[in-house]
Amino acid sequence: MMTGEQYLASLDDGRATYFEGRKIENILDDKIMGEAARLIAAGYDKLYRPGPDATSPLMSIPRSAEDLKARLPVVSDADIVANTTNQSIMTLMTAAGRIGDEHPEYARRIQAWIEDAQRRDIRITECITDGKGDRSLSPGKQADPDAYTRVVERRPDGVVIRGAKLHITGASLGHETMVIPTKAMKPGEEDYAIACAVPVNAPGVKIVNTSYAPRHEDDRVFPVSRQNHMPEGFVIFDDVFVPEERIFLNGETKHAGQFAHSLGLWERLGGLTFMANEADELVGFAQLIAEANGLAKVQHVREKISEMIIHATLIRGALEAAIANCVIGDNGAAFPSELYTNAGKYQAATQYNMMCRHLHDIAGGSVLTAPSIADLENNEVGPLVRKYMTANPEIDGECRIKLFHAIRDLTADAMGGWRYVTNIQAGGGLYAQRIVTRKHYDMEHAKKKALHAAKMLPEHAAE
Amino acid sequence: MMTGEQYLASLDDGRATYFEGRKIENILDDKIMGEAARLIAAGYDKLYRPGPDATSPLMSIPRSAEDLKARLPVVSDADIVANTTNQSIMTLMTAAGRIGDEHPEYARRIQAWIEDAQRRDIRITECITDGKGDRSLSPGKQADPDAYTRVVERRPDGVVIRGAKLHITGASLGHETMVIPTKAMKPGEEDYAIACAVPVNAPGVKIVNTSYAPRHEDDRVFPVSRQNHMPEGFVIFDDVFVPEERIFLNGETKHAGQFAHSLGLWERLGGLTFMANEADELVGFAQLIAEANGLAKVQHVREKISEMIIHATLIRGALEAAIANCVIGDNGAAFPSELYTNAGKYQAATQYNMMCRHLHDIAGGSVLTAPSIADLENNEVGPLVRKYMTANPEIDGECRIKLFHAIRDLTADAMGGWRYVTNIQAGGGLYAQRIVTRKHYDMEHAKKKALHAAKMLPEHAAE
Amino acid sequence: MMTGEQYLASLDDGRATYFEGRKIENILDDKIMGEAARLIAAGYDKLYRPGPDATSPLMSIPRSAEDLKARLPVVSDADIVANTTNQSIMTLMTAAGRIGDEHPEYARRIQAWIEDAQRRDIRITECITDGKGDRSLSPGKQADPDAYTRVVERRPDGVVIRGAKLHITGASLGHETMVIPTKAMKPGEEDYAIACAVPVNAPGVKIVNTSYAPRHEDDRVFPVSRQNHMPEGFVIFDDVFVPEERIFLNGETKHAGQFAHSLGLWERLGGLTFMANEADELVGFAQLIAEANGLAKVQHVREKISEMIIHATLIRGALEAAIANCVIGDNGAAFPSELYTNAGKYQAATQYNMMCRHLHDIAGGSVLTAPSIADLENNEVGPLVRKYMTANPEIDGECRIKLFHAIRDLTADAMGGWRYVTNIQAGGGLYAQRIVTRKHYDMEHAKKKALHAAKMLPEHAAE
Amino acid sequence: MMTGEQYLASLDDGRATYFEGRKIENILDDKIMGEAARLIAAGYDKLYRPGPDATSPLMSIPRSAEDLKARLPVVSDADIVANTTNQSIMTLMTAAGRIGDEHPEYARRIQAWIEDAQRRDIRITECITDGKGDRSLSPGKQADPDAYTRVVERRPDGVVIRGAKLHITGASLGHETMVIPTKAMKPGEEDYAIACAVPVNAPGVKIVNTSYAPRHEDDRVFPVSRQNHMPEGFVIFDDVFVPEERIFLNGETKHAGQFAHSLGLWERLGGLTFMANEADELVGFAQLIAEANGLAKVQHVREKISEMIIHATLIRGALEAAIANCVIGDNGAAFPSELYTNAGKYQAATQYNMMCRHLHDIAGGSVLTAPSIADLENNEVGPLVRKYMTANPEIDGECRIKLFHAIRDLTADAMGGWRYVTNIQAGGGLYAQRIVTRKHYDMEHAKKKALHAAKMLPEHAAE
Repeated sequence: MMTGEQYLASLDDGRATYFEGRKIENILDDKIMGEAARLIAAGYDKLYRPGPDATSPLMSIPRSAEDLKARLPVVSDADIVANTTNQSIMTLMTAAGRIGDEHPEYARRIQAWIEDAQRRDIRITECITDGKGDRSLSPGKQADPDAYTRVVERRPDGVVIRGAKLHITGASLGHETMVIPTKAMKPGEEDYAIACAVPVNAPGVKIVNTSYAPRHEDDRVFPVSRQNHMPEGFVIFDDVFVPEERIFLNGETKHAGQFAHSLGLWERLGGLTFMANEADELVGFAQLIAEANGLAKVQHVREKISEMIIHATLIRGALEAAIANCVIGDNGAAFPSELYTNAGKYQAATQYNMMCRHLHDIAGGSVLTAPSIADLENNEVGPLVRKYMTANPEIDGECRIKLFHAIRDLTADAMGGWRYVTNIQAGGGLYAQRIVTRKHYDMEHAKKKALHAAKMLPEHAAE
Repeated sequence: MMTGEQYLASLDDGRATYFEGRKIENILDDKIMGEAARLIAAGYDKLYRPGPDATSPLMSIPRSAEDLKARLPVVSDADIVANTTNQSIMTLMTAAGRIGDEHPEYARRIQAWIEDAQRRDIRITECITDGKGDRSLSPGKQADPDAYTRVVERRPDGVVIRGAKLHITGASLGHETMVIPTKAMKPGEEDYAIACAVPVNAPGVKIVNTSYAPRHEDDRVFPVSRQNHMPEGFVIFDDVFVPEERIFLNGETKHAGQFAHSLGLWERLGGLTFMANEADELVGFAQLIAEANGLAKVQHVREKISEMIIHATLIRGALEAAIANCVIGDNGAAFPSELYTNAGKYQAATQYNMMCRHLHDIAGGSVLTAPSIADLENNEVGPLVRKYMTANPEIDGECRIKLFHAIRDLTADAMGGWRYVTNIQAGGGLYAQRIVTRKHYDMEHAKKKALHAAKMLPEHAAE
Repeated sequence: MMTGEQYLASLDDGRATYFEGRKIENILDDKIMGEAARLIAAGYDKLYRPGPDATSPLMSIPRSAEDLKARLPVVSDADIVANTTNQSIMTLMTAAGRIGDEHPEYARRIQAWIEDAQRRDIRITECITDGKGDRSLSPGKQADPDAYTRVVERRPDGVVIRGAKLHITGASLGHETMVIPTKAMKPGEEDYAIACAVPVNAPGVKIVNTSYAPRHEDDRVFPVSRQNHMPEGFVIFDDVFVPEERIFLNGETKHAGQFAHSLGLWERLGGLTFMANEADELVGFAQLIAEANGLAKVQHVREKISEMIIHATLIRGALEAAIANCVIGDNGAAFPSELYTNAGKYQAATQYNMMCRHLHDIAGGSVLTAPSIADLENNEVGPLVRKYMTANPEIDGECRIKLFHAIRDLTADAMGGWRYVTNIQAGGGLYAQRIVTRKHYDMEHAKKKALHAAKMLPEHAAE
Repeated sequence: MMTGEQYLASLDDGRATYFEGRKIENILDDKIMGEAARLIAAGYDKLYRPGPDATSPLMSIPRSAEDLKARLPVVSDADIVANTTNQSIMTLMTAAGRIGDEHPEYARRIQAWIEDAQRRDIRITECITDGKGDRSLSPGKQADPDAYTRVVERRPDGVVIRGAKLHITGASLGHETMVIPTKAMKPGEEDYAIACAVPVNAPGVKIVNTSYAPRHEDDRVFPVSRQNHMPEGFVIFDDVFVPEERIFLNGETKHAGQFAHSLGLWERLGGLTFMANEADELVGFAQLIAEANGLAKVQHVREKISEMIIHATLIRGALEAAIANCVIGDNGAAFPSELYTNAGKYQAATQYNMMCRHLHDIAGGSVLTAPSIADLENNEVGPLVRKYMTANPEIDGECRIKLFHAIRDLTADAMGGWRYVTNIQAGGGLYAQRIVTRKHYDMEHAKKKALHAAKMLPEHAAE
């Protein structure tokens, strides 16, 4: 396994990555990119076990509900690129199981690549969402044929791909990127039915980064996001060669959707796990700030916190049900229930804004206007700020200020905006979750229940 | 065990029961009361097993999550008085476990009474909600001291009780009623801390019934409620003597709340189970009527059905989590998780009206205005009604009419109103579920999570 | 003008009307139909002014915002068939203004027919919604060509029509029915582009009625609906001849949608007015029952009532804005704002179930289980029922019981179901209201505002 | 009247203002504070009219609904400190009318001070919210008696005040601050019943500022907030002397609430106006980004935009109704309806997060991850970014990127967080708006309507 230090060294591999108009020559020298890299390095150190046979728990395959449940805290504590690594492995495993019967060669390559990834203990990011061009047109009918990533040249030893993948969290900081079709493809769209693994430093890969990392010179203003940010990559494949062994689908349109469906399941399980924890976290902030404000016993405050608790419990219940009702695939791997995973993720995403509204309603305007720690240190106004920011006399004004800062940073500033949007968008938007839940719901059973209630089943005719 | 016929015969025991101003001399002779009694009788026949050692599954004690799960379909298929019988047994078992250490005598009496109930295979109803008088005053401060059921006389061999219990489903059709305090009591309210079992035909018990049963002469107009109604009893204890062996609490105010809390858990589990099924049923009706209307592929209709599906799945997920996270008590009995049970019940109750709105929105005005089956049989207009009520040509107009009738009966008529209200009120109202969920939520864990996110735990001080 | 008595006499005109399988030979002899007829008769008496020149205020044309506002209480107090009469007149006036330029002959006929209707002081019902068959197919492509009402024969002096119109409130109790296309028609659907006025007793008109009228023998159980019900007509045109003077559109498909659009505006204004009053009524019930329960000062009860108040106020605000922003047409008639009318109606309809949920949550289970007035009169249990149904000692138990009965009747019984469904469906369903609001919203203005905020207007380029 | 330049010069008056730990010696030299000052200066120039008699429209008194309506665009276009100036004048006018009868001296001083403010054309900020200490205790019972601003010394010619006022928008950039009690006071709390006007540069006034202004070096990343931010002041009165002529209330506890109530009305009208415009703006962004994404015709996108339109229309309707139903006070000034103002503000605030959720759902993840303008200018990746960010071929990729940037800046970044919180908190939080709406709703009318519906009015007894 790799140590954090080895990981940081591994980034100096000639990758072409850009940030706010500049090419980044040395990732570690860039304040924001460097901080994110060190977050991943810390994740390596946390999981590191010595010895040649040690493999990362991120790459092990769960085989039961117990395995899935045991993995939850590992995943919850890991950084986001560790998560995408785990999800990528699970996605390819899932897809291999679904296409292996018809295309054993692809399944073999996937297996070989996963074993190599385990051996190298690399980080993998998920390249799925294409530029997409005009959403009302299919890939083959776009004004720009590159709107969806495609094969532009076939060579004896591999293919050349062109296109762009958007919203690729941590793309510049992984070692490889799993490239899969953004959706199902139709006959005639063979060039778009391409799945493969591409090293980040492959010639022609160019990554443009964005980040919500705070730009404030005083890190204390952003107690959460100062250490907890990851660049989003806009990954451009500017005619990149992919050798045969790294190609997992190449033209078989009927299977193109399998990869996205597989990723969707694992991304949404990840999202549901994250949001179950996040929901508890919001309850905790609501209770802490209510106490700091001296409002913890006021009935309408208690009611709002109760609603936040019920929300958090429903999300957690869906997660528990998704795992308890997991399915064991042909290859022995355990998959969480699509039904509960998607329904839980949908509820968490649709109600997230409402929970933040409750938190803000309880906390009050100081979420925005609490003075800074630097103000507390100013001799002329610091003692006065501390005095007047004390509400519940048992809780020091500085402590209350820090709670406000954390709430602002998490829910009412750049990182907050990131959460607002990604809670909805990660794993494919609300619409996708409705579609999938519907697909996996037992509609015939529900119809039969209704006909039973209406006394319209054949057995009722005799009555 | 008792057969349905034996049950019906057992009702002729001198009980004093009233319906719409009249005393009911013979229950079976009254159309509405008789129908309800026969529904219970059919339930007896469904569960009947011969032999002297046979006992009703309604009275067995679950000892694991598997037991609880296995019981779900039994409970779902049973009539409502079979359900209250089951809940009463579980409530007393739960309460016995909680007060037995301090008051072994009460635990012994409860055990003996349960065994007798099993032997006799009786039906039990739950007398909990008092008249309550002015809600802003405690029992001891009411203008009328009888607003809460109380002991008015203590005799060597028992007590005399006075008061009224409201909303007692099926009270007139059970054999005994479990009488418990409606809430916790304080010192000085000893006379109100009374729990006991009272036969329905005990002198002084008077029951006033109400019913949503349809009064229409043509039963076909109410395909669901025509066979599926149960009178609600307003149970008056007009100075009723209760012998010692049937008294389960007598003056120990500190334990008065235990009975209601125990009942609350089992009632809400019952409610959650019912509503999980009901939610699937509503999805089924929405899909069936969308198909009958020729609207099943319209996107906004599909979206609404997807929301109904997600709702149904969240409820089911909470039920699964409540059982998977059950607690095994000292006496070996399994109790569902209070946390998930209450959160799930709350969500089901608060969103029920919204789900009905979706159903009505999809179904259209014919929910109200679909002609009757009698109209279909009229020579002059019947064929025309059938012709014009056919929408999707693959579904006969009569079938569509029947779906509309069932939807009206279930959601937009007297039975629909009963469901609207009881889904909220059964088990204690929305407020009670918020309180209990909050009580069982791990708030300290949530606060710690928040402090961790804010980097405010002691371990962060060093950073 | 007509008196109530004259109106009742006028119904004996040979009309073919059916109810629950039977043909109604004499409307006044049928309990339910007769009650509804007498409700309309009372409405006649309330508006009656003597003299040959007197005309009904239901048929006067508003010419300003003040006129529209002054009309609100008239409309609110009137019965539902008086309302459809008013809406029919306004619909035809509106449509005449929109098609008169191209087809002055139709405008002339409409004007003549309205004047005749004023002179005769008749009641008019609105025949719009067709059977519709398969909703995914247009009228000309249905398996049954009669799924939408159409002309089946053209004669020199008029046309013969065939089809059915659904959900026609009071159809059997009006004098004439305004028949208009259910939606816009396309070229090739000329036979479906038919608008006309048809007397209820015209040969071939057959009406099948449904009613939510209570069937209980004791009227006191249904204090509201016992007097306040109106049959819904399923109106069949079984080859009905319509003479030329009564034809208002005949084949001009491009104008077919105008009638429905015109009716939609007036129906939704009527709906909005009704629901603004209904929302206040629900607030009143919530406050009264909270007081009767002794809960009026409990904070979570007050919060729920506050939300009901805010809802009622928003609806009222939309109604005020719809009138304040009315448009004066070419013919001098005032039309309420489509924008505010539709937005207000939508809000009222979508939140109605939620407001009833609040009411039920505050009121408690006695909404369903309050004993009857007959029980109060029973010597054995009446005094006990009164005693135990008293909560707040300042409010008599009987008064509280009556409030529960009214709440049940209005929101949790057959009439309640009628309101649940019609609040959504009247005027075309939620979807229709979204479409129309969108159509009348100034989107270009909103886009410009957004571009201004984004500093993306041409004027910002220079900055 | 003052020009922008004169305004900027007037800030150099010795005021003690602090920002992130530093004392600001020269406001114009500080990047963030200077930008905000120049925004106010531009507002001066926009309103400037020459001549000695010219007075600012911000300080004129509306006398009719027309006046109120005419003022809306003035207020909407003005900066936020111009708004607080206007609201302060209106608040004092309103309060003077309410306390003038009993205390003509205060009314006289208010009148004189307003005239002086008009003459000097100053900017005024609103100092209302105290530190408050423990919210469960009244001002007189706090551990720290200064938790609410109070008089600590009475002198012949005035008083000395001590305390802190929080969330005072633009406090450091106004000329004077209107200091009023945060709430009603009780007998014994005379020292807290203090209202007055205090110049910002009075000795003892110390202001600690916070700001959401972007700290990014490239202004183009924040197209909206780069020019559109205003510091929030934490205003400390560290023993500040206030001369008699500037004191508007001094110990009369019974009137202490009048100032806050008056301010609440005008703040909420301002908030409602702002949010009505903001709602249209969000609709505009939703439509523009849907078009740029090529999604404008997708049904579920259209549905979401329809809901946003209906929301915007309801808010606008409440604003129209608030003005149409204004009240003319004794002194001839027009006050908007408290009822509609509060109900509209509540709806706008509670649904704001939901509207942003719709916008984010429609826009997609590029709200967060759209590359920067600097990236577009980079030779190596700029053309590729433009190419792949083009969706609808009729809309250039750069234009789409700019829309994403504006949406992020407004709704998913620091300024977005400011809006999330202030939309709820400005004017006193959701709870306050419920309270006030309730207070001004005609509850007796609603109860009478309910009793009428229930047939329980005296007039029904005879029936």
